[in-house]
Amino acid sequence: MIKYLDANEWKVIESSFHPEYQRSSESIFSIGNGKFGQRANFEEHYSGDHHQGAYIAGIYYPDKTKVGWWKNGYPEYFAKVLNSVNWIGLDLKINGLQLDLNTWKVEAFERVLDMKSGVLQRSFKASAPQGMLAVEVEARRICSMADDDCGVMQYKIKANEACSIEVVSYLDSDVENQDTNWDEKFWNLLEAEAEPDLAWVKASTKKTNYFVAAAMVTNCTTAKKAHKPHSADSSNSLASQSFLVEVEANEWLNIEKHVGICSSLNHEESALVDVASEAAQGSANKGVDAMFKAHAAAWDRIWENGDIVIEGDAEAQQGIRFNIFHLNQTYTGEDARLNIGPKGFTGEKYGGSTYWDTEAYCLPFYLSTHPQKVAKQLLKYRFEQLGKAIENAEKLGFKNGAALYPMVTMTGEECHNEWEITFEEIHRNGAIAFAIYNYTRFTGDKDYIAESGFDVVLGIARFWAQRVNWSENKQAYVMLGVTGPNEYENNVNNNWYTNYIAKWCLSYALKCILYLKDSHETAYAEKCKLYSFKESEETQHWADIIEKMYFPKKANSKVFLQQDGFLDKELIPVAELPEADRPINQKWSWDRILRSVYIKQADTLQGIYLFEDHFDLETIKENFDFYEPFTVHESSLSPCVHVVIAALLGYEEKAYEMYLRTSRLDLDDYNHEAYQGLHITSMAGTWMSVVEGFGGYRVKNGVQHFNTMIPKQWTSYSFSVMFKGRKMQVEVSKNKTAVKLIEGEAITVFVNGQEETLS
Amino acid sequence: MIKYLDANEWKVIESSFHPEYQRSSESIFSIGNGKFGQRANFEEHYSGDHHQGAYIAGIYYPDKTKVGWWKNGYPEYFAKVLNSVNWIGLDLKINGLQLDLNTWKVEAFERVLDMKSGVLQRSFKASAPQGMLAVEVEARRICSMADDDCGVMQYKIKANEACSIEVVSYLDSDVENQDTNWDEKFWNLLEAEAEPDLAWVKASTKKTNYFVAAAMVTNCTTAKKAHKPHSADSSNSLASQSFLVEVEANEWLNIEKHVGICSSLNHEESALVDVASEAAQGSANKGVDAMFKAHAAAWDRIWENGDIVIEGDAEAQQGIRFNIFHLNQTYTGEDARLNIGPKGFTGEKYGGSTYWDTEAYCLPFYLSTHPQKVAKQLLKYRFEQLGKAIENAEKLGFKNGAALYPMVTMTGEECHNEWEITFEEIHRNGAIAFAIYNYTRFTGDKDYIAESGFDVVLGIARFWAQRVNWSENKQAYVMLGVTGPNEYENNVNNNWYTNYIAKWCLSYALKCILYLKDSHETAYAEKCKLYSFKESEETQHWADIIEKMYFPKKANSKVFLQQDGFLDKELIPVAELPEADRPINQKWSWDRILRSVYIKQADTLQGIYLFEDHFDLETIKENFDFYEPFTVHESSLSPCVHVVIAALLGYEEKAYEMYLRTSRLDLDDYNHEAYQGLHITSMAGTWMSVVEGFGGYRVKNGVQHFNTMIPKQWTSYSFSVMFKGRKMQVEVSKNKTAVKLIEGEAITVFVNGQEETLS
Repeated sequence: MIKYLDANEWKVIESSFHPEYQRSSESIFSIGNGKFGQRANFEEHYSGDHHQGAYIAGIYYPDKTKVGWWKNGYPEYFAKVLNSVNWIGLDLKINGLQLDLNTWKVEAFERVLDMKSGVLQRSFKASAPQGMLAVEVEARRICSMADDDCGVMQYKIKANEACSIEVVSYLDSDVENQDTNWDEKFWNLLEAEAEPDLAWVKASTKKTNYFVAAAMVTNCTTAKKAHKPHSADSSNSLASQSFLVEVEANEWLNIEKHVGICSSLNHEESALVDVASEAAQGSANKGVDAMFKAHAAAWDRIWENGDIVIEGDAEAQQGIRFNIFHLNQTYTGEDARLNIGPKGFTGEKYGGSTYWDTEAYCLPFYLSTHPQKVAKQLLKYRFEQLGKAIENAEKLGFKNGAALYPMVTMTGEECHNEWEITFEEIHRNGAIAFAIYNYTRFTGDKDYIAESGFDVVLGIARFWAQRVNWSENKQAYVMLGVTGPNEYENNVNNNWYTNYIAKWCLSYALKCILYLKDSHETAYAEKCKLYSFKESEETQHWADIIEKMYFPKKANSKVFLQQDGFLDKELIPVAELPEADRPINQKWSWDRILRSVYIKQADTLQGIYLFEDHFDLETIKENFDFYEPFTVHESSLSPCVHVVIAALLGYEEKAYEMYLRTSRLDLDDYNHEAYQGLHITSMAGTWMSVVEGFGGYRVKNGVQHFNTMIPKQWTSYSFSVMFKGRKMQVEVSKNKTAVKLIEGEAITVFVNGQEETLS
Repeated sequence: MIKYLDANEWKVIESSFHPEYQRSSESIFSIGNGKFGQRANFEEHYSGDHHQGAYIAGIYYPDKTKVGWWKNGYPEYFAKVLNSVNWIGLDLKINGLQLDLNTWKVEAFERVLDMKSGVLQRSFKASAPQGMLAVEVEARRICSMADDDCGVMQYKIKANEACSIEVVSYLDSDVENQDTNWDEKFWNLLEAEAEPDLAWVKASTKKTNYFVAAAMVTNCTTAKKAHKPHSADSSNSLASQSFLVEVEANEWLNIEKHVGICSSLNHEESALVDVASEAAQGSANKGVDAMFKAHAAAWDRIWENGDIVIEGDAEAQQGIRFNIFHLNQTYTGEDARLNIGPKGFTGEKYGGSTYWDTEAYCLPFYLSTHPQKVAKQLLKYRFEQLGKAIENAEKLGFKNGAALYPMVTMTGEECHNEWEITFEEIHRNGAIAFAIYNYTRFTGDKDYIAESGFDVVLGIARFWAQRVNWSENKQAYVMLGVTGPNEYENNVNNNWYTNYIAKWCLSYALKCILYLKDSHETAYAEKCKLYSFKESEETQHWADIIEKMYFPKKANSKVFLQQDGFLDKELIPVAELPEADRPINQKWSWDRILRSVYIKQADTLQGIYLFEDHFDLETIKENFDFYEPFTVHESSLSPCVHVVIAALLGYEEKAYEMYLRTSRLDLDDYNHEAYQGLHITSMAGTWMSVVEGFGGYRVKNGVQHFNTMIPKQWTSYSFSVMFKGRKMQVEVSKNKTAVKLIEGEAITVFVNGQEETLS
């Protein structure tokens, strides 16, 4: 745990400069608008250790796979979201001396992420390495949520003596990913042009051939006058506008930079420079204040639907808002070709690609805090990639339209290359089917099954039907050689979670068929033809599997066994593990982890979380009591599920402990890895842990239930959820839970077991 | 299978030029002398596809590990035997036209590996691309077994018209490995010098800092006169001597090149150039014929001890001699720092490093065909690396002097980086202990246990004692997360072979202690102190494990289960597998192989092979009948064990089928991979399959048994074995088996069940 940031309900504050944590701060204070994002790098030159990063959603490069020992079926590339045009650059020379916080003496420094209005602010005083010269700077910037092609920044500087300030405002497309596998350059540097009133750069990605353009308007003013650039320069990758201004002592020089960024994902290549230029000029015409205001208004709307208020615990409040803030700036649902990378726009690890995290953790957040269409875009993303999922399954030897969604992907093609994950962590397929079910139960939009849902469910059901095999020995269907969500086990037989969700998928496919035959007969007939679906033959096999699927169990108990052979391990709880051995993923060799009892994230509990209604409370309790002591929570996705189940079981202390761990994972940098980027997808788990954990929010048989509890550290908390076109506000204090209908038609809900009709 | 070579009892013959198989031929016709080796590259320039390769034993480079996803405990490097000085080079220009079989028209071509005398020969006629010029060449070369620092070659050329022939004889140290991970150069090119009568080059390896020098004397003569070089040139990596000779039509030009090669492994760096020069000059002084004669005499001695004669089946005869030939030129036992790379000096795959192949397959060959000291060197190699094996175990969390020998190594440090192999294929430890037992029973040298054997056995026993864990569930000791010799299963629980050899190691350690206490009391006391061995405490634990080790079994049968859960697989025999799906390691994704029943090499049978005396014939038969149908033999180490057991069970056809597969694996290039180098270590398996398979050779309770059979394709066969200082000759014909004592004191043996005393 690294604690250097101040607690505040709406802000993240670095109140003195910590160059030693600069990379972490750059991640934590990142801003974005779903379309592009920017690490919290300094605008002015900084020669200290840092990681410059700006990312445009969907613009990726297929980085050639690096592997020690090739296995059949490994993908050729790992898709990486590209570090792209550096648009924030301002080079400043005061009396010819370059401003650089690594060499200047920093006397006052504050970096603030204002989550309410979505603004990154920074102010500092710094004095030159030699002499008496000192400057004061106030900077702020946004990736506009209102005009999502625009980045806007304001940078004010004054000096303690009359001096000349040279400002070089630039766009630079010659940037590199730090995570390149083979030290390759990913960009073709095409052209750049600079005029005094407008400058732009244009580049294209190698191999994938995306085009990106960025344009800027830079205004430089003092109280007395607007200054013109004394030069505008360009190379093939750099466009700059330079100003030379003589200022009085303590006279503010105000620099405003309006940037337009766009790509061939959304525009014709030939139009890109015009589109970017118009965005920059449009922003400049509106002015910095108006742009910030419109941006803040967009954030107001987001908070209106998605805020969680916690009273009496500033750290908990800051934690949850930090999570909600980053989720919203990572994904907005505007574009179904985009998805939610595990690090969002905050770093390069995991390549910005899509994981099962989206369906398993993020979807519930977007379902409850955004209009229905946002979650639907996430479903559409997978539907559009169904063909690739079928190809992916074919590569592994499956037939007849079986679909295996990839572990990691940008376009639907598999990117990951560890056999035990790529080929075996197939439970991901279940999450993708479950997301369709989840979407329909939270929105009521069952038509989606006829629209596209069944297509995906069918491919997935066909996969499971081929992936199991009949064991003569067990007289049951078994699933051999899998890796469950608990990645601290590889290539196991009969992972309970995987077997359970496979069986559920087959059942759900049967239900979908009944529904379609009942209400969308024509659509169903068309799909049967399209997918050569032999209903009676295939569903008969599914029904047989459903009936005879094997599930490992602990004798004389209600405990489901994580996999075959689990009880042969040494059952020593985490509490008895020496502190020096943790985290085990850093201290132990992989084989030792695998044969130990320790669990990265408890996948049996994950299954119980998803299918809670299938189990009685005693079963849930026995399983939680059995698995929790062996769980090391070394996956960021682990603690949230434990909050939800612990809350259900009334384990208040455990729930609160796990809540802090999930909500402040990055703010307090629990695992010393914030420098690589934030855990964006697990942030949705934090949301779940409040709403489903403490708020006890469930949908059962189409009806909402709230069974609330409140941690003793809190005086009250509130959240809102959207459900079937309505919006509900839930307020929980020490002795009261109030659920109000804010929008939509009257509805009946259960609050702590009591039926209430809201209107 | 690729068949383009002629069958012959003593020779391997390529009777017309096959440029399409040039890389394979370069492997198959490789020569070496245990100290250095040379692929069968052409002496003259060849612009066609080929793989130039010369290797010096023990001179390696720690090539930086390449890996997709790093796991704790992975090694930093993979040791690679270096492609080193190209010493065979002769550049030839006839009337200014470079001789190159890729562009000249080849009219007659023969490449012959004469295994009897260890000579690579080549002759061809070739005509120039344009015009009437044609040449005839006769070349031969050796890596001298008699003077093992010397390579000697003779190259005779004549033309069909009077012409000028320019000969550039050179040494070139600027060579690269084709298997480099990161396209790095491995050599520092130090210096070279050329005089008319002697030229040399010197280079050193990066990182490991080995120094290598090569020197040459080139003699160029026609019948009339000896020619002097017209120039001698050098750069930092190249030394050459050039001759320009005017020859008459059909006048032979005779080029003789005497090369000395040595390294800092055996000499002071400062002396290297002198040593190499003296070797080259010494060879030149003796002359080509004398050098070839001394070399042939050394091979005569090898064949005297190690030949196997098969009458009536030229392919079988050629196959077994090819195997024996390559084993002998790969390892001579002169130097305990060296070992047997899976490809010897014939290619770069597997890096020339040491695998468990040495103990499991090669040791029996050297024990029976060479003086005792040769096998002892192989044991010494591991003893010298005991400290590294203890370090290796410590890296994986083991304590108290537990030793885990590496999967792949040059110096004792682990080189391999697949977790399922590196960390889990731990059965290798068992083979290393078994080798000590094997050595003592074949040589009678039990003192070796007191000398060094117990040290190794103790470290290995300590490893197993920590690697098992007590299963409350099974009330037995289990071994979780291992990969057996059948690498088509990874991370399984209770691999029968591994559990069995672990238990055997513990028992053997106890026996060694009894022996030491009985006959080497002082040595034992010293070792107890040296290794802090708490005898009563540790051996009590060992005894408990021996008593309560768990072994998976098939109910109601004598079949040992390969591992827990094996019977949950679909038990479809290989015979029903579509041909298009084979070899499965090229056609199937890894997960599919893992969950299938198919076996790369049957490790349960491997265990039965090693411990045959522990099982009754019915048990052996049931297990063979159960596993053989599921075995795809996609390991080169697989068929030989099946020959031995099939022969034991009287399955003559199966034994012969498997024999052909193992003995002609490279000659007939069964797996289309001879171009990468030959399967040197599995060649020892071929020897086993004749001597232990058809010859039924066993040592039981210190006495030799021969239970012979003869394939119907053979009229007779014979082999010799060394045993406890004696040498026996075994001759088997259709209706008779004769065992004769050739050397040593009288001894009693069993021949087909009959006791005979030989004198």
